[in-house]
Amino acid sequence: MSEKFTKNILGRNVPEKVNGIVQIPFMGIGKHKPSGKRHGPQLVSCSDFPSDGNKTVASLEQALLNAGLRDGAVISTHHHFRNGDLIALQIFEIAHRLGFKDLVWAPSASFECHKPLISYLEDGTIDHIEGSMNGALGVFASHGKMKGLGVLRSHGGRYQAIQDAELLIDIAVIAAPTADAFGNATGDRGPTACGLLGFALADAQFAHKVIVVTDNLVPFPCYPWQIQGNYVDMVVVMDQIGIPEKIVSGTTEITKSPDRLLLAELTARFCDEAGILKDGFSFQSGSGGTSLAVGYYFAEKMRAKKIKARFARGGSNKYLVSMLEEGLIDYILDGQTFDLEGVRSMRENENHINTSPFTSYNYHGKGNFASMLDVVILGATEVDLNFNANVVTHSDGLLKHGIGGWQNCLFAKCTILPIPLFRDRIPVIRDEVTTICGPGELIDVIITERGIAINPLQTDLIEKLKDSQLPLKTIQQLKDEAEAICGIPEKPVFTNKPIAVVKWVDGTLIDTVWQLEGEGG
Amino acid sequence: MSEKFTKNILGRNVPEKVNGIVQIPFMGIGKHKPSGKRHGPQLVSCSDFPSDGNKTVASLEQALLNAGLRDGAVISTHHHFRNGDLIALQIFEIAHRLGFKDLVWAPSASFECHKPLISYLEDGTIDHIEGSMNGALGVFASHGKMKGLGVLRSHGGRYQAIQDAELLIDIAVIAAPTADAFGNATGDRGPTACGLLGFALADAQFAHKVIVVTDNLVPFPCYPWQIQGNYVDMVVVMDQIGIPEKIVSGTTEITKSPDRLLLAELTARFCDEAGILKDGFSFQSGSGGTSLAVGYYFAEKMRAKKIKARFARGGSNKYLVSMLEEGLIDYILDGQTFDLEGVRSMRENENHINTSPFTSYNYHGKGNFASMLDVVILGATEVDLNFNANVVTHSDGLLKHGIGGWQNCLFAKCTILPIPLFRDRIPVIRDEVTTICGPGELIDVIITERGIAINPLQTDLIEKLKDSQLPLKTIQQLKDEAEAICGIPEKPVFTNKPIAVVKWVDGTLIDTVWQLEGEGG
Repeated sequence: MSEKFTKNILGRNVPEKVNGIVQIPFMGIGKHKPSGKRHGPQLVSCSDFPSDGNKTVASLEQALLNAGLRDGAVISTHHHFRNGDLIALQIFEIAHRLGFKDLVWAPSASFECHKPLISYLEDGTIDHIEGSMNGALGVFASHGKMKGLGVLRSHGGRYQAIQDAELLIDIAVIAAPTADAFGNATGDRGPTACGLLGFALADAQFAHKVIVVTDNLVPFPCYPWQIQGNYVDMVVVMDQIGIPEKIVSGTTEITKSPDRLLLAELTARFCDEAGILKDGFSFQSGSGGTSLAVGYYFAEKMRAKKIKARFARGGSNKYLVSMLEEGLIDYILDGQTFDLEGVRSMRENENHINTSPFTSYNYHGKGNFASMLDVVILGATEVDLNFNANVVTHSDGLLKHGIGGWQNCLFAKCTILPIPLFRDRIPVIRDEVTTICGPGELIDVIITERGIAINPLQTDLIEKLKDSQLPLKTIQQLKDEAEAICGIPEKPVFTNKPIAVVKWVDGTLIDTVWQLEGEGG
Repeated sequence: MSEKFTKNILGRNVPEKVNGIVQIPFMGIGKHKPSGKRHGPQLVSCSDFPSDGNKTVASLEQALLNAGLRDGAVISTHHHFRNGDLIALQIFEIAHRLGFKDLVWAPSASFECHKPLISYLEDGTIDHIEGSMNGALGVFASHGKMKGLGVLRSHGGRYQAIQDAELLIDIAVIAAPTADAFGNATGDRGPTACGLLGFALADAQFAHKVIVVTDNLVPFPCYPWQIQGNYVDMVVVMDQIGIPEKIVSGTTEITKSPDRLLLAELTARFCDEAGILKDGFSFQSGSGGTSLAVGYYFAEKMRAKKIKARFARGGSNKYLVSMLEEGLIDYILDGQTFDLEGVRSMRENENHINTSPFTSYNYHGKGNFASMLDVVILGATEVDLNFNANVVTHSDGLLKHGIGGWQNCLFAKCTILPIPLFRDRIPVIRDEVTTICGPGELIDVIITERGIAINPLQTDLIEKLKDSQLPLKTIQQLKDEAEAICGIPEKPVFTNKPIAVVKWVDGTLIDTVWQLEGEGG
């Protein structure tokens, strides 16, 4: 491979082309302005669709063939079933059996359940993945075993790329817990209810062919119609489309670790002292034990101050739902449900609203919800002295995670990363992160168990907290403390071969993920 | 004017160009297949929008100027306020005051309240109207006084034209009874609640610039968001955007006329005997006294038969709402509310669903709702011996009405026109209608007070009703009876100058409306 690279404004080497397509290097926040037009799929006519609205076909295989499955086709799926997805594997089993090659899988996220796809990556059925490569898939790619180059995008970046015609989907397969024969579909009810279907919105709107698969066909109209049948070509009924219990992946209980509880409590205190916790404020906090604990401390302070939040952004879970039902929050604007209480609440509570990467995260829109948040609480695998942060690779160089909504959320008015100062005796604050996923100027506060660093760019925050009793330090101090305890960490050794690129929210390349030296496992 | 004309498949002369744009003559139902792509507006970036989501600007004038108002611009409005719209006039008053010329007004429908726009059509502020020209505006155009050529489209045709880039809207102004500063907007609540905003959906999705005007600004998030703020450029707050009481235009009480009651009762009996009134069926019936009475008789029969309808399509009104609330209908799929009971019900009843011309009527989609209806009850000004029908002109040749959803509804499984055999001693059944709006092959049954004619193409219906006691006749018999009473009607005398074209649901030209001879009033 004789790839050419260019340095982006952060000094990171990024390829000039990705899978044959010319790229734009990251130019700084808000600097790249799109010049094209929104993608317009081929126009169709009702005269080519059944007038009685019945679009059912006998099998997924038949639907894929009707949709024009061919070598090199781009096929998308959504991840609302998270680790309980049963559809992606079926699609590529069918494609493999029929002998199709060089397909591109464009999921909105991948999970451990997708590990069996490795055999299709190995045998040439799948060329590469445009989307997150979690766990085993990421490790596979890190060792240079994926044929094409992976493309990592945030949830909003995925919508942006599909809308902007950067990612052209040939066939979208949308798993729908309830649907009618016309293709109207919802995720909030049915035996395999998974909450919502917002991650499939771009796919429905812009893919060339759209297939809804469901295990709960209801008479027209299926309502709510989170996916509108007017975008749908075919409907396939099957026994089971997903395992809803497995949407509960990752930590779903508040942490019991004293260190993590300290992080969470410090975060809530910080928000309180910074004046963020006031009546009508808004917040977003991820899943994971620490984030859940932040919500717990927020709720305590909100009760004490007799204030409520105007809205919280989900991923929703039982803790957020209980705040909604207690009246501490007016609205949950939810992107995905992280547990079955989230699913129940979305079905039952009118003010638990299903949103999408279009409303919440699309950077090539007329604004989005993410920048309206007063505060967002996020994680990171590494942070550097300029507050640049990494969420996709570990310090050993292995690709392990997708970006999720992380990049999009950085646009909140205040972005806080509560992170341990070290993990398994490996310091989290580095001279340079393995992979830059977010530019430091958008990251305002690092909260560790040994102190809090405010980004020097945030002069207002620093001024507000100048008399605080909080353990405020510089990020250099935090780094030094960690290294005094753990030593200076080693860096992974990479080849000069890229295995994936990391897109910024505007479609430009913010960094490259490199193949690790050695054979790998 | 040296226009060239061509004959379409129905033998009607239609211009080769309309306002400079080459046209396709009507080719038959389902014959024209679109070859282009869905319209993609210019991409934008969040970096050009306020990150706090506050898009308010001080005035409508400022918003129009910010949006790039210029000579020849196409400006759209919606008609959910029907005869109570207060926005369209303001727009053109501003444009007139600022000296802009040759604008195009693209409303989703016009009403008598828009009569004052005639002065702007006369002074060159407005070149022409792309949309319905009701009452005075139609008469004005019929006398050749409008500079450009009018373009009449169905509700679905308007969505199709905007989606297909046939009608490019520069600035959409969306009157919203409740909105937030981000532009999320709803029609179902607020002091001027008008029900829904579905007719503005295409405008929001595809216009270059989108302005929401509201008299009820609420904190983010405004929910439901019938219009999504992510499509909105600016928000203007004003004292009053519309007069909701005036959405009640046209007849809103069940007719007391014995002739009309007979029509309605015959229609219900016909549907019953034809096997249409069965459990789970669906229907659509317009506003107007006769249609309302059809609903009344349907309800009577449904109670007696202990059946219910799966869905009814609105325009909704108090009669349809009472059927929903009585449990005779599972869902109302509503396109516009015809009275304030409709507005209330949409706000309060979860199964009273706001729909749009996209879901219900767009012919260049992957199916739409209209063709799923078991029966639709519509009106007409004239019908010919081939069942071709007219809804836009009267027999005196004057343009008086818009098409509304009429053309779109013809795709129902059974289309019934209950019409009086004559109006003011002018027979309704003609050798040739003044203007063809719908091809006869889609019109199944004509029900008059003196007999019922089934379209000979509907052999199944004829077979089903062969032993019926209903007064079945041929359409020729009905015409003869009318002429025996009223005499043979005179035809209007037209010039060879077109004043408007009538588009079919696929964007082709089905007919032309001609200028009347003489000066006119």
